[in-house]
Amino acid sequence: MSLKVGVIGTGMIGQDHIRRLTQVLSGVEVTGVSDIDASRAAAAAPQGAEVFATPQALIRSDRIDAVVICSWGPAHEEQLLDCIAAGKPVFCEKPLVTSAEAARRVMDAEVGFGRRLVQVGFMRRFDADYRRLKAVIDGGTLGLPLIYKSVHRNASVPPGLYTSEMPLNDTLVHDADISRWLLSDEVTGVEVRLPRRSRQGGELRDPHMVLLHMASGAIVDVEISVNIAYGYDIRGEVSCETGIAALPNRPATVITDAHGIRQAIPEDWRERFIEAYDQEFREWIAAAGQGTATGPSTWDGYAATLVADAALEAAETGQLARIEMGEKPGLYDLPLQQAA
Amino acid sequence: MSLKVGVIGTGMIGQDHIRRLTQVLSGVEVTGVSDIDASRAAAAAPQGAEVFATPQALIRSDRIDAVVICSWGPAHEEQLLDCIAAGKPVFCEKPLVTSAEAARRVMDAEVGFGRRLVQVGFMRRFDADYRRLKAVIDGGTLGLPLIYKSVHRNASVPPGLYTSEMPLNDTLVHDADISRWLLSDEVTGVEVRLPRRSRQGGELRDPHMVLLHMASGAIVDVEISVNIAYGYDIRGEVSCETGIAALPNRPATVITDAHGIRQAIPEDWRERFIEAYDQEFREWIAAAGQGTATGPSTWDGYAATLVADAALEAAETGQLARIEMGEKPGLYDLPLQQAA
Amino acid sequence: MSLKVGVIGTGMIGQDHIRRLTQVLSGVEVTGVSDIDASRAAAAAPQGAEVFATPQALIRSDRIDAVVICSWGPAHEEQLLDCIAAGKPVFCEKPLVTSAEAARRVMDAEVGFGRRLVQVGFMRRFDADYRRLKAVIDGGTLGLPLIYKSVHRNASVPPGLYTSEMPLNDTLVHDADISRWLLSDEVTGVEVRLPRRSRQGGELRDPHMVLLHMASGAIVDVEISVNIAYGYDIRGEVSCETGIAALPNRPATVITDAHGIRQAIPEDWRERFIEAYDQEFREWIAAAGQGTATGPSTWDGYAATLVADAALEAAETGQLARIEMGEKPGLYDLPLQQAA
Amino acid sequence: MSLKVGVIGTGMIGQDHIRRLTQVLSGVEVTGVSDIDASRAAAAAPQGAEVFATPQALIRSDRIDAVVICSWGPAHEEQLLDCIAAGKPVFCEKPLVTSAEAARRVMDAEVGFGRRLVQVGFMRRFDADYRRLKAVIDGGTLGLPLIYKSVHRNASVPPGLYTSEMPLNDTLVHDADISRWLLSDEVTGVEVRLPRRSRQGGELRDPHMVLLHMASGAIVDVEISVNIAYGYDIRGEVSCETGIAALPNRPATVITDAHGIRQAIPEDWRERFIEAYDQEFREWIAAAGQGTATGPSTWDGYAATLVADAALEAAETGQLARIEMGEKPGLYDLPLQQAA
Repeated sequence: MSLKVGVIGTGMIGQDHIRRLTQVLSGVEVTGVSDIDASRAAAAAPQGAEVFATPQALIRSDRIDAVVICSWGPAHEEQLLDCIAAGKPVFCEKPLVTSAEAARRVMDAEVGFGRRLVQVGFMRRFDADYRRLKAVIDGGTLGLPLIYKSVHRNASVPPGLYTSEMPLNDTLVHDADISRWLLSDEVTGVEVRLPRRSRQGGELRDPHMVLLHMASGAIVDVEISVNIAYGYDIRGEVSCETGIAALPNRPATVITDAHGIRQAIPEDWRERFIEAYDQEFREWIAAAGQGTATGPSTWDGYAATLVADAALEAAETGQLARIEMGEKPGLYDLPLQQAA
Repeated sequence: MSLKVGVIGTGMIGQDHIRRLTQVLSGVEVTGVSDIDASRAAAAAPQGAEVFATPQALIRSDRIDAVVICSWGPAHEEQLLDCIAAGKPVFCEKPLVTSAEAARRVMDAEVGFGRRLVQVGFMRRFDADYRRLKAVIDGGTLGLPLIYKSVHRNASVPPGLYTSEMPLNDTLVHDADISRWLLSDEVTGVEVRLPRRSRQGGELRDPHMVLLHMASGAIVDVEISVNIAYGYDIRGEVSCETGIAALPNRPATVITDAHGIRQAIPEDWRERFIEAYDQEFREWIAAAGQGTATGPSTWDGYAATLVADAALEAAETGQLARIEMGEKPGLYDLPLQQAA
Repeated sequence: MSLKVGVIGTGMIGQDHIRRLTQVLSGVEVTGVSDIDASRAAAAAPQGAEVFATPQALIRSDRIDAVVICSWGPAHEEQLLDCIAAGKPVFCEKPLVTSAEAARRVMDAEVGFGRRLVQVGFMRRFDADYRRLKAVIDGGTLGLPLIYKSVHRNASVPPGLYTSEMPLNDTLVHDADISRWLLSDEVTGVEVRLPRRSRQGGELRDPHMVLLHMASGAIVDVEISVNIAYGYDIRGEVSCETGIAALPNRPATVITDAHGIRQAIPEDWRERFIEAYDQEFREWIAAAGQGTATGPSTWDGYAATLVADAALEAAETGQLARIEMGEKPGLYDLPLQQAA
Repeated sequence: MSLKVGVIGTGMIGQDHIRRLTQVLSGVEVTGVSDIDASRAAAAAPQGAEVFATPQALIRSDRIDAVVICSWGPAHEEQLLDCIAAGKPVFCEKPLVTSAEAARRVMDAEVGFGRRLVQVGFMRRFDADYRRLKAVIDGGTLGLPLIYKSVHRNASVPPGLYTSEMPLNDTLVHDADISRWLLSDEVTGVEVRLPRRSRQGGELRDPHMVLLHMASGAIVDVEISVNIAYGYDIRGEVSCETGIAALPNRPATVITDAHGIRQAIPEDWRERFIEAYDQEFREWIAAAGQGTATGPSTWDGYAATLVADAALEAAETGQLARIEMGEKPGLYDLPLQQAA
């Protein structure tokens, strides 16, 4: 029995997920789509899928078991609340919502429902390199984690479209989420430092150095560079009490030629994380088939929102911006502890 | 429309392929199974699949679009000929057949049918590391390939069950096939040298050094060690005219501790090639859905048989054993040239 | 004509330098020694060397062309001033002196003399790995340096003897000096953050994270761990505008065994920097033979003192501690610019 | 007391050794030189050194404690015999002599003298990477060595001057000597295979694949490429019973840029082995000061001659060329066993 999925939002990322759900993964079919641009929805709909006039109609339809939200951020809250009201598992691309208050409303609804339904699109948690790294840390043979260095480098960002707030608002959330997950920890404060500006991005503030203070006392040190030119380079290294664990080089051919002995760097996030996206949906399908969700939760989406807000504040004040998450509902206890 | 697949042979590898076809891959369902042990077939059959009394019945059934052969080697020839007679695409685990004459009979039948139907289970060709390596060589920026060094190391083999002929008869075929594919070349002669015997395997002849002389003049230098203890370590390095291209380390966590800075080695072939097996079937399903086959062909299975025979002869004589493949039917022109 | 050198202080490091000057290097001989413990001096004196009753007597002797100071820190100022008064080139182990005021007095004397005479013992600048790294940065092909990550890990420190101030007072100076040299830059402010405490060192504050704000705007991010157990691990990575340059793994044998594919980490600083010490003295001898000094200068020793003071202050306040070095005397213009 | 050394032959390599003995190393001075071109000898002579009219005059002079032979190969035998007659330690650049018979005559003389006096210039044995590799093998934790893969790649050789015999006559000796030393073994037979010819060298036979059969049964597999364009790349990997040990990448800066993550390859043998040459002479000076020699011996030079002869024969016949060294004089027992 295949899981019948409806996709809301058929832009670039929505289309990619439709491809993944129909051509790559098993046990799933796309039975409905919806988009504010009805013709785009029609074009993106796979054979046999219904084009719904509204997200609400899709969510409530008997032909839909579970929902994938790829609409723009401001629409997420209402769509998530509708899914929860309908008791349907939902995968929501990041950002979960666009404010802490909205995140709390979604959490309240889900807690009221009494079972997890929401998975947020932090795909790094499904990447095999990160999972092996977490397994090493969780294994405990290196002692407790003390410092985590996260490096997030983009070859380039679109000039004009990508603003100076986005490294902290948009890019940092991946590092923050993966840090919380790797260390099984929460962020309690954020500091931002601005090194000498790269001339690669003109007036854009770049790079950023961000320090995340964690509840355990561990410090996460994030380097964000968005115009590094040479490729998409994601690095992570955990200093523990008696050893270090780090993400490996990507498995590119080892070439020896006039440029030395070398391995290519991925060009972009698609190349780097394509298998992680597949695995993310594979696990979502399995959980949704059971009427629930695992993986990154509403609580994780809420945390991401708080970190982004705090980072923007810290960049402005130059001081530590503290984060108070409040008590975590019991519903969300599992995901952080859960070994990969 | 899913491809309806029948699986012949439900031992360990057959069961693993049934799992893959039902739980991992999309666009396919297992609708029939057959085994000489009917109760084993019944136990392995997924829900809704028919248990056929004979391979022939399975192959001829209307409920079967395409066939996966996982029976033992001596049964392959007849099953392959039946598939070709029925015009059904077939995936055949190695060895294709157990003699050069049998391979020629299967080729004759397939050529007579006029379209490729057979894919042989050389899964390395579907491994991402090997594909990137081939892309570098085919790209030509390093000049022509002159020497290829293939290293094939197993942690251990079952004492008694694994005999001194098997490194040449069973293990070498992977290195020979991947060499032919990587270099777009054919083997014309084989030499075998026996280094000092490892005490790890008792009386077993191990390791082996094999030289494959290729039609282009390139030499392939294969090290086979089957009791190396530390893991399953597959290496490959191509010396070209102006540079070297090699398989990378596997992407294991980089740990720094009392043992140094290090990356784990895979334990066995399952860990090393699991994604390659998935991809192998993904592409087989796509081709079978079109009523044909791509990937390793009957010609490639024939070549493997000739190399194994020549290697056994070379080990005995200490001399070069020459290989005469005869003319390649036009049907098989594509696979070797085909870029990954 | 060999350079006749007098060594003041014949403890462990003094003895090691005597060995180096007599057994390893050419163009030099040790003609005098002095120590507060006269019997230790006598024991350490090579054949034919005179044991002087006081440092002053050694410094002023006609048998001494140049001086190596390995006494304890508080004695350095007077000995350095005596050397300058005598117009004799002097190599001074770190710390140059123990206060910023003392450093200024030594600088004033040297400037008054009108020629550089003092080289401070920052041996990392003579390490081949660091020199190649600097050459890459100075070459400019990666653009300007924006962030430098320095990692300084010791296997262990003696409990009790090594206090919580020493990571900032004693260990950090190496990272600070090499950062100034690599980036051709000056430190203008220091921040200190204390991650979760490692249980390896009991009550010792460890690890430390230090941010050095540089005059150019670049930020140096230093991780200091002094009880990491696994070895002595020195790392450095410079993020530039269009690329990254980093220190390589040390050239240890690549072993593949049950612990993976791996390279050993040095045990301690002796193993890591032994060639750098040799090269440091090789260059000192060459300059001293010309009656002057190159390499790390009094200015660099002064900077180190200021950074250590600021780091201790920053650790106490949790705030940025600013550094005002004042104007650099023209005498010291060369060393920072000087390519390796 | 410095060792007084006379240098015979003041061409490029002789001049480099004079520089090394006068400017780099301690405990040694060059007190005499000799060359068939007297004006070249005069130009190369350091201050205070005597220019001798003949090698014999230099060897017999009271001003000379030990001799360095850098003349051309055909002159070596007589000069070595003169040194032995005079009882003076002698360092002889390769080739020791130009025939097996000549090598035996020099051995007979040295054995007659009763103490080792000759060290042959196989500098790889003094390279830190090779020494660490040997220490791992000798340590025995990986079991016995079974296969050694030696890779010898030159960026280019001078067209015309470098003939098709030279890879086997001139280049191979380094791989053969290091193999004997690493494995503490002797070569008993040689096979040569010629892969597809590289177009980099025109009509030059290149690359070569050479198999050395060792007395222990181990096989050494040598790849020699002399026009690989990209650099001077020396590799070595030993397959033992339970693990692998290999030379590391050279310690070049790790650069990440548009060419990937990479380390530069040495340009030529000077860059690669400069420290090995220094260490080679450091140890020679120490032994010569004791009136004897350690390191590569006359026996090792004899072995090199036999391997080169056998390789040329094997290349011609395509068959295994056997080597019979005869009994090793007791005088030469130590060097091969001796741990680095």
